Amino acid sequence: MDVMKEISEGAKKVDAALLKYLEVGKYEKLRKAIRHYPEAGGKRLRPLMAMTVAEAVGMKGDDAIPFGCCLEIVHNFTLVHDDVMDEDQMRRGRPTVHVLYDVPTAIIAGDALFAVAFKVLATTPVDGERLRRLLESVSDTIYLVAEGQQMDIDFESRTDVTVEEYMEMVEKKTAVLFACAAEGGAIIGGGTEDQIRDMYEYARLSGIGFQIWDDVLGLIASEKVLGKPVGSDIRNGKRTLIAVHALETLGTKGRKQHAEELKAFGNPKATDAEVKKVIQLFESTGSIKHAKDIALDYAFKSKKKLDCLPESKEKQFLAALVDFSVGREH
Amino acid sequence: MDVMKEISEGAKKVDAALLKYLEVGKYEKLRKAIRHYPEAGGKRLRPLMAMTVAEAVGMKGDDAIPFGCCLEIVHNFTLVHDDVMDEDQMRRGRPTVHVLYDVPTAIIAGDALFAVAFKVLATTPVDGERLRRLLESVSDTIYLVAEGQQMDIDFESRTDVTVEEYMEMVEKKTAVLFACAAEGGAIIGGGTEDQIRDMYEYARLSGIGFQIWDDVLGLIASEKVLGKPVGSDIRNGKRTLIAVHALETLGTKGRKQHAEELKAFGNPKATDAEVKKVIQLFESTGSIKHAKDIALDYAFKSKKKLDCLPESKEKQFLAALVDFSVGREH
Repeated sequence: MDVMKEISEGAKKVDAALLKYLEVGKYEKLRKAIRHYPEAGGKRLRPLMAMTVAEAVGMKGDDAIPFGCCLEIVHNFTLVHDDVMDEDQMRRGRPTVHVLYDVPTAIIAGDALFAVAFKVLATTPVDGERLRRLLESVSDTIYLVAEGQQMDIDFESRTDVTVEEYMEMVEKKTAVLFACAAEGGAIIGGGTEDQIRDMYEYARLSGIGFQIWDDVLGLIASEKVLGKPVGSDIRNGKRTLIAVHALETLGTKGRKQHAEELKAFGNPKATDAEVKKVIQLFESTGSIKHAKDIALDYAFKSKKKLDCLPESKEKQFLAALVDFSVGREH
Repeated sequence: MDVMKEISEGAKKVDAALLKYLEVGKYEKLRKAIRHYPEAGGKRLRPLMAMTVAEAVGMKGDDAIPFGCCLEIVHNFTLVHDDVMDEDQMRRGRPTVHVLYDVPTAIIAGDALFAVAFKVLATTPVDGERLRRLLESVSDTIYLVAEGQQMDIDFESRTDVTVEEYMEMVEKKTAVLFACAAEGGAIIGGGTEDQIRDMYEYARLSGIGFQIWDDVLGLIASEKVLGKPVGSDIRNGKRTLIAVHALETLGTKGRKQHAEELKAFGNPKATDAEVKKVIQLFESTGSIKHAKDIALDYAFKSKKKLDCLPESKEKQFLAALVDFSVGREH
């Protein structure tokens, strides 16, 4: 199965609906600001997941387009606000919203996207009680995403983050939105309660695996694959699972012993050679292998959850999507 | 009717439910941040309006508590983000959220409040299709509030704001959330389509009147009544209806002629005497009287919309609420 081709065909379908949903409001400046990221494209994995799951449990995948677009808009709202908080200048090759306009406009644009997301949710073609369930799920999920983002920010100023805390942060910041997408797809598609629960787990587990694998790639892949410099997580001192595991494994004694190499961790001006030494240190503690193993284990467990689905092209695609997200080294 | 007593009794009822809704999440720091403003109290006028309207059209007002709390939480989320944008230091006698924590935490806390608002909405005791209608109304409303906030911010750097633009901004930033409250109360209370539409208009009209009257009070009331220094709108150069009307009436020629007095408009360091001269100028252009007349006219038209309701204590209270908001000079 050509996963990239499936993704890009699905994305085209989503884009048409998505950009139509974002033709809102009378005030042009705000409308332009909210369309800035969505117009720049993207894989649209969350809508795609919702649509594929809806189809896999037996309904038309198109019924899940509004719900999927709701989550894509939520995803974009978090990006707009995250970029303000992280003071990032570029996203998808374009200036970030607060750079193109200003911080107040970016905060408002994020809020406006949030509002549009729920407006789109209301158009989901399901009965009112299932809509209530989707509303509960989406709002619960966004609260968890906010918690994950708050943890991520708070971790930056801490050196004692545990592996357990890291796993909770990743689950909340990344995985639950995918889980909500797959769960919602199963609800919209009229899946059984078992399928609804298993689809949530499928996407939660692969979402965690995906984020951990992404951190691994950030250290072992080439700049071309990453679209950003290798080791930028090292220079930013990012608390990835690898870093957290390495610092924990080294302990106070080990961290003192390797203080010289570790100076490059969190030093934006560290040279390539210095970064490489940190990567070697993280290899010596077994932290890269540890992260790979954990990510692959999540991917394996995620795919097991697909057992609840009847055989179909969609089921195969959901499995292929996990392998596409976790396990690639180039 | 003792309006203040009715308000404070209603607020007590709302507070108990509201603070319970805000016992969410596992991450204590975020939970404390989202509770910071709601815990500081407030008149809870939006929930009160929803509950009173629900009762006035014939149902238990308590059925509208979740919906009313949803809007109160939305209101608080806008305050948290507005304070970040305006760089305000204090609110309700306490440090603002971004001062107590930091800007990223305040942005996230606002987003988290937004999420909780929709979580609470989902608990509204109405059938699913009416819930869908409420969801549409609330999300449409928040988009309008975002537009109003964006206009307000953009006006700060403009001298050519028209009365028409000002009226649109006030309607969006302030009035539509009240309108949504009254409309939702009528929907939840099982009101007729005519009642639902008229209740929306009742609150939209009085909301506009209230904001204009508030700007009048900012110039003519005492510091004790205002809870802030008299003329702070003058020192901040705020584009109130009064200022917009005065600048428009003066025209280019008049503005040149009164350039000396107008220096105090938008000058945070202007003396009391200088501020007084600006107020006198705004009086001489008839702008204060103009704003009063407009506000009272909105209040009058608002109360006319109550004709659709049967006689009741609640109907009287809704009328008294308008007179309480528009027309007081002390």
